[in-house]
Amino acid sequence: MDIDALKAKHPDHWRRATAIRALALDAVAQANSGHSGMPIGMADVATVLWSRHLKYDAAHPDWADRDRFILSAGHGSMLLYSLLYLAGDPEITLEEIRNFRQLGARTAGHPENFLARGIETTTGPLGQGLAMSVGFAIAEESLRARFGEKLVDHKTYVIAGDGCLMEGVSQEAIALAGRQKLGNLVVFWDNNNITIDGEVSIADATDQPTRFAASGWHVQEIDGHDPEAIDAAISAAKADDRPSMIACKTHIALGHAAQDTSKGHGALTDDDQNRTAKSGWGWEGAPFEIPEEIKSWWEDAGRRGAPDREAWEARAAKLSDAKRREFERTLSGEAPKKLSATIKALKKQLVESKPKVATRKSSEMVLEVVNPICPETLGGSADLTGSNNTKTSDLGVFDIENRAGRYVYYGIREHGMAAAMNGMALHGGIRPYGGTFFCFTDYARPAMRLAALQQIPTVFVMTHDSIGLGEDGPTHQPVEHLAICRATPNTLTFRPADTTEAAEAWELALTQTSRPSVMVLSRQGVPAVRHEMKAKNLVSQGAYVLAEAEGKRQAILLATGTEVSVALAAREALQAEGIGTRVVSMPSLELFAEQDEAYRKRVLPGGPVRVAVEAGVGLGWDRWLFGERGREKKAGFVGMSGFGASAPAEELYAHFGITAEAVAEKVKSLL
Amino acid sequence: MDIDALKAKHPDHWRRATAIRALALDAVAQANSGHSGMPIGMADVATVLWSRHLKYDAAHPDWADRDRFILSAGHGSMLLYSLLYLAGDPEITLEEIRNFRQLGARTAGHPENFLARGIETTTGPLGQGLAMSVGFAIAEESLRARFGEKLVDHKTYVIAGDGCLMEGVSQEAIALAGRQKLGNLVVFWDNNNITIDGEVSIADATDQPTRFAASGWHVQEIDGHDPEAIDAAISAAKADDRPSMIACKTHIALGHAAQDTSKGHGALTDDDQNRTAKSGWGWEGAPFEIPEEIKSWWEDAGRRGAPDREAWEARAAKLSDAKRREFERTLSGEAPKKLSATIKALKKQLVESKPKVATRKSSEMVLEVVNPICPETLGGSADLTGSNNTKTSDLGVFDIENRAGRYVYYGIREHGMAAAMNGMALHGGIRPYGGTFFCFTDYARPAMRLAALQQIPTVFVMTHDSIGLGEDGPTHQPVEHLAICRATPNTLTFRPADTTEAAEAWELALTQTSRPSVMVLSRQGVPAVRHEMKAKNLVSQGAYVLAEAEGKRQAILLATGTEVSVALAAREALQAEGIGTRVVSMPSLELFAEQDEAYRKRVLPGGPVRVAVEAGVGLGWDRWLFGERGREKKAGFVGMSGFGASAPAEELYAHFGITAEAVAEKVKSLL
Repeated sequence: MDIDALKAKHPDHWRRATAIRALALDAVAQANSGHSGMPIGMADVATVLWSRHLKYDAAHPDWADRDRFILSAGHGSMLLYSLLYLAGDPEITLEEIRNFRQLGARTAGHPENFLARGIETTTGPLGQGLAMSVGFAIAEESLRARFGEKLVDHKTYVIAGDGCLMEGVSQEAIALAGRQKLGNLVVFWDNNNITIDGEVSIADATDQPTRFAASGWHVQEIDGHDPEAIDAAISAAKADDRPSMIACKTHIALGHAAQDTSKGHGALTDDDQNRTAKSGWGWEGAPFEIPEEIKSWWEDAGRRGAPDREAWEARAAKLSDAKRREFERTLSGEAPKKLSATIKALKKQLVESKPKVATRKSSEMVLEVVNPICPETLGGSADLTGSNNTKTSDLGVFDIENRAGRYVYYGIREHGMAAAMNGMALHGGIRPYGGTFFCFTDYARPAMRLAALQQIPTVFVMTHDSIGLGEDGPTHQPVEHLAICRATPNTLTFRPADTTEAAEAWELALTQTSRPSVMVLSRQGVPAVRHEMKAKNLVSQGAYVLAEAEGKRQAILLATGTEVSVALAAREALQAEGIGTRVVSMPSLELFAEQDEAYRKRVLPGGPVRVAVEAGVGLGWDRWLFGERGREKKAGFVGMSGFGASAPAEELYAHFGITAEAVAEKVKSLL
Repeated sequence: MDIDALKAKHPDHWRRATAIRALALDAVAQANSGHSGMPIGMADVATVLWSRHLKYDAAHPDWADRDRFILSAGHGSMLLYSLLYLAGDPEITLEEIRNFRQLGARTAGHPENFLARGIETTTGPLGQGLAMSVGFAIAEESLRARFGEKLVDHKTYVIAGDGCLMEGVSQEAIALAGRQKLGNLVVFWDNNNITIDGEVSIADATDQPTRFAASGWHVQEIDGHDPEAIDAAISAAKADDRPSMIACKTHIALGHAAQDTSKGHGALTDDDQNRTAKSGWGWEGAPFEIPEEIKSWWEDAGRRGAPDREAWEARAAKLSDAKRREFERTLSGEAPKKLSATIKALKKQLVESKPKVATRKSSEMVLEVVNPICPETLGGSADLTGSNNTKTSDLGVFDIENRAGRYVYYGIREHGMAAAMNGMALHGGIRPYGGTFFCFTDYARPAMRLAALQQIPTVFVMTHDSIGLGEDGPTHQPVEHLAICRATPNTLTFRPADTTEAAEAWELALTQTSRPSVMVLSRQGVPAVRHEMKAKNLVSQGAYVLAEAEGKRQAILLATGTEVSVALAAREALQAEGIGTRVVSMPSLELFAEQDEAYRKRVLPGGPVRVAVEAGVGLGWDRWLFGERGREKKAGFVGMSGFGASAPAEELYAHFGITAEAVAEKVKSLL
C-alpha cells in the first residue's frame, strides 16, 4: 500500500484518521496487549462515518435519537475508545486511554457497555455485535412506529470483521435483517483478509457480497482507505431501503511492518517498528499526544449533532405531558404503573379458577393480561410460537408493512433471536421476550451470557423444560440446563410451579433493569398449587413454605416447577403415615440466595430430613441440601443423573423414578 | 400437486416410495406424536437414493466402506426407520416400527445413533447433522489418503430441512465444506417451504442455492418428486468435485389434507384424513402392512451393495497382517499400544525437567509425543492455533492438495468445528481434537452436548480457562464453564495442574471410547506440582492426595488446574503456622465421583476443615465440601462469584481474592 499516495491525496483526512491509528498503537503498546491492526486499518472508514454521517452529540452520549455505532469486531476496541476520546465523550478521557486494559479503567480489553455511556454494546465474542445490531434496528423501527419519526429516526452502523462473518450467528442475523428489510442498518465489513491463523483463505472461500445479496441486502464494495468512496457508499446505503453491507477492502495495520499479516492482528509492541510506522504515517510527537488542531477538528465533529439534538429536545418538549411521560418511561425501562395491579387481579382470579395447565400456558395467560398494558413488550419465538405460547391475541406481527406489530417470527434461529433481543434491550424502549425449547438454551447460550454480562433485562422464554417433553427424546430433553442457567452470574432463573407463580415470576422479570430472566416452563399440565390469595409476590423471595408440616416436622421437601406437585403428593403420602412434612417451593434459587440468613433459616430450618426433587441433574442442589449450614443433617436428591429417553412423559417420570412414591421412599430411608 | 399424474408417470417407483409414506403415517398415528409430513415429502428422494446410489448392504450396517446417510432433519425419523426396515436392516424390525417413540424402542422420536447400528448420527437439534456431515466427509478423505481408495471410498449423503439451513451452524458447515472442496458430500435440501410457524417466507427470504454457490458448492434445483430428475441430479453430484447441494422442491405431507401446511409438519393423527390420503396414494391394506412384492423389491435394493461389500472384504483380506491390524485398530477406536509407554516416558522426563509452563503448553508437549505414535489423531483449532497450542510439528495441514495432513484450520467456527469433530468420531477411524478459548464453549455447546449424548470420544481442547486470561476481559473469561461441563452427563472434564497431569489426562482422553473429554487449560504459566515419578495414572482416579499434612491434619485444600499451586502455597503458609494441611488435586470431578466410597473417604476424610479453590463459580463444589458425607464439618470456597474484568492476570487474581493468603485465611477462619 502506498501510504504517501494516500497522504497526498487527502492530507487533512489522513491526519485526522491517523490520530486514531496513533492512539491505538500507543495504547496497545503501553498495555503490552490488545489489537493494534484493526483500528489502524479501519480508521478511514470510522473517520468518515463519525465526522460526516453518524448522528450523535459526543457530549450527550445517551441522547435517545442518536445513531448507534456497534463495534462487532470488539477486539478492535481502541478504535471505539479513540473515536470517543477524540470526539469529546465526557467519560473516555485521555487518562482512560492511557489506562487501556487496566483494572478499573473504562477502556477494557473489549468494549463493555456498562463502563461508559458511549459504549453501546459489549462485544468480543465474534458475531454478537452484528446479531445484536439487528435488534437495535428492529427496536428503532418499532419505536418509530409507536412514537413517530419526530422522536425516533436513527440508524445503526456496525463494523464487522471476518470473524464475525464466519461465526454462524452472522447468517441468522443477515437472513433475519434481510427478511425484515431493515433499511436503517448499515454494516461495514472490514475486508482485510487476515485472521489470527493467517490469511482468510486458509479457512474460507466464501463470496461474502454474494452471500449478503442472497439474503436481500444492498451490497457495495469499496476501497476502505478512500474517504470519498467511503462517503459515497454510506450515502448510498442510507438511501437504500434494504439493509446495507459495505465491503471495505482494507489493510490491517496499514503502514506498519506487520501490515497485511496475522501478526498485525494482535498487539504491535516493537518500539522501533512502531516508530517507523508513525514516521511513515507522517505522525510526529510523543505517545498519546494529539496535535491541537486535529483534536479540535474532531471535537467539532463530535458537536456536529448538537443542533439536531437540541431540535429533537425542543420537539420532545412540545409533546403532551402524557405522551412525554410515556416516552420517557418507556425509554427508562420503568414498568407501567398498572403492572402490579394487573398481576394482583390475575392472581385473585387464579385462586378461584385453579387452572390445571402446562406452565407454558400459564405464561401465556399472564402475557395475555400483561401485553395490553405493557406496550414496550416485543415478543417472538424461534419458530415454536404455538409451543412456546408466546404470541398473545393483541400483539400483531412485526413486519415490513407493519412495524407497529409486536411479535417477531425469528425463524429457526435461537442464537440470532437471543442476540437480537439483547440489541433491543440495549437500544432501550423495548422489553423483549422470545421463546424456544429449554434444551435449545444451548444454541442461544453465547447471547444469554452476554445478556447477563451486559446487565440487560432480556427475557428468555424456555418451554418443554424436562423429560416431561416426552417422545421427542433426549436431544430435546434438558437435564443440565437449569444448572447451566444457575451457574451463570447475574441471571435470574424462574421455574414456576403453576399459573400464580408464573404471574409473580413475570412481574419480577418485567421489573428487572439490570439482569436477564429465564422463564423455565413445562410442556405438560400441572395442578394449581397456590390456593390462597397473597397480595405479596412470593416468588420474589425465591423460595417459600408452600405447605406446612402437620404434627412434628420431620422432613422438608424442596421442589421447583412441575415437581412441586410431585412434592405435594409425596407430602400427602408421608403425612398419611404420620411423618410431618413441609413443602418448600423454590421458583428461583438465585433470589432465595439473596434473602437474609434469618429468612433462609425460617424456610429451611435445621433438623428435618431434606429431599429435593427436580427433573434435572442435581448439580447445585447440595448447597440447599447440605451446604447452607454447619449442622449435621440427612438429605437426598430425586432427579436425573443422565440423559432422558424417548417415550410418553408419564412413563419417563416413572422410568427415571421422579415420583411422589420415590420422594416419600427417599425421606423414609433417611429418617 | 396432482398425485394421479405422479402415480401414472412412474407407477412402480410411486408404490415403492409410498411404502415409506404409509409406514410414516401409520407409526406417527399409532404413537400419536411425531412428524408425518417430512417422510411423506422426501420419500421419492430417499427411494431413489437408497435403491440406485447409496452404497450399503442392509444386512451389514457397520460395513466400514458404506456410504453414510445422515438425516439432519431428524424429526423426520420415520423416513430413516422406514428405509432401514424396508431394506432389511437386522435391528429395525416391523416390531420396532410399531413401537415408534415408546420406551425401550430403537425407534426413538429422533434418531439416536446408539440405539441401532444403521443409525449413523443422533439428530434433531437442527443443523447438527449437516455440520457433522462435514466431519464425516473429512474423515473419509483423511482415511482414503492414509489407507488408499481400495479400502476407503465412500460418500456422505445428507437430508437437510429449512430449519437446518436457518440455524447459523449451517453457514459454518457450508463454508468449511466449500473451502475444503469436499466432493464426497451431497446434501439434499428438502425445499418444502414450510416450518412450524407457517411458510418459510414469514421468517426467511434467503436464496439458498445462491448462498451455497457463494461458498463454492455445486448446486442443482429439481422437482423432488420426479425420480428421474432425482437420479440425474445425484449422478451429477457424484461426478462433480465440489460438495453438492440438490434443492429438492417437495410438498410436505404430499397428498394429505395437511399438504403444504405447517400442520403437515407435525403428527397427522386424524383417522379419516389419513385414510383418505392413503386412498389417494393408491395404498391399500392394513396399517403397517407392506405388500410382499414391494418389501421384496426393497430388500433387493438393500442387498444391492452385498457384492461390493464382499469384494471390499476380499481386498481387505489381501492386506498384509500388519496393515490389516492397523486398519482394524484404527476403525475400532482402540488406542495404539505404544501410548501408555509414551506417556510414561514423558512423565519420567517431566519429573526431571519440572517445566514451569501454561497448561496449554503442557498439552502441546504431550501432543508432540502422542501425535507421532497416534496416526488417527486429527487436530485443529477455530482460528486460535498459536493460542490453543494444538498444532504439533509433524501433523501437516489437511487441505485440498494434502488430504494426508492432520491439522484442520476450522476458521472462526467453534460450533462447526465441534460438530465436524463429532462427525469424524462417528465415522470412525479418526480421533479428533480441536481447540478454542474455554469461554467459547458457549458457541460449541450444542455440539458438545451431542458428543456426550452420542457417546463418542471427541476431545475439546479449551484454553485460557479463567480470569488468568487477563486483559481480554470478562467476555473472554470463563467463570461458569467448568460448572457447565460438569453438569453435562457423560462428559469428562479435565483441568490438569501441570504437564504431568496433562499427560495423564490426555492418556485418558485418548483411550475413551464412549464419552467426550474437555481439556481445560490455562493461558498463564504454573509451576510443576508433581515431583515424583508414579507409573500409575493418578488423574484416572479423578482426585488424589498431592501433598500430605505434616503433623495433625487440620485442613484439606481441594483445587484444580492453576489453583493447585495456589493451594500448595497456602499449605506452606499454614504449615508454617503449625496447621497440618493436605492438598488434594482434583483434575476430574467426574472420575473422582466414579471411585468407590472407600477411596473417596481416604482422599477426603471427615474431620478436617475443607476449603476448595478454583477460579470459577462455586456451583457443584458443595458436594465435595459438605455433601459427600453426613458428618458435621466446616468448609468454604475461594473462587469467583460473578464475571471477571479486564486487567493483567496477576492483578485479577489479587482483585478477586484467589490467592494463597485468602485460602489460608479462609482455613483459619473456619478452624
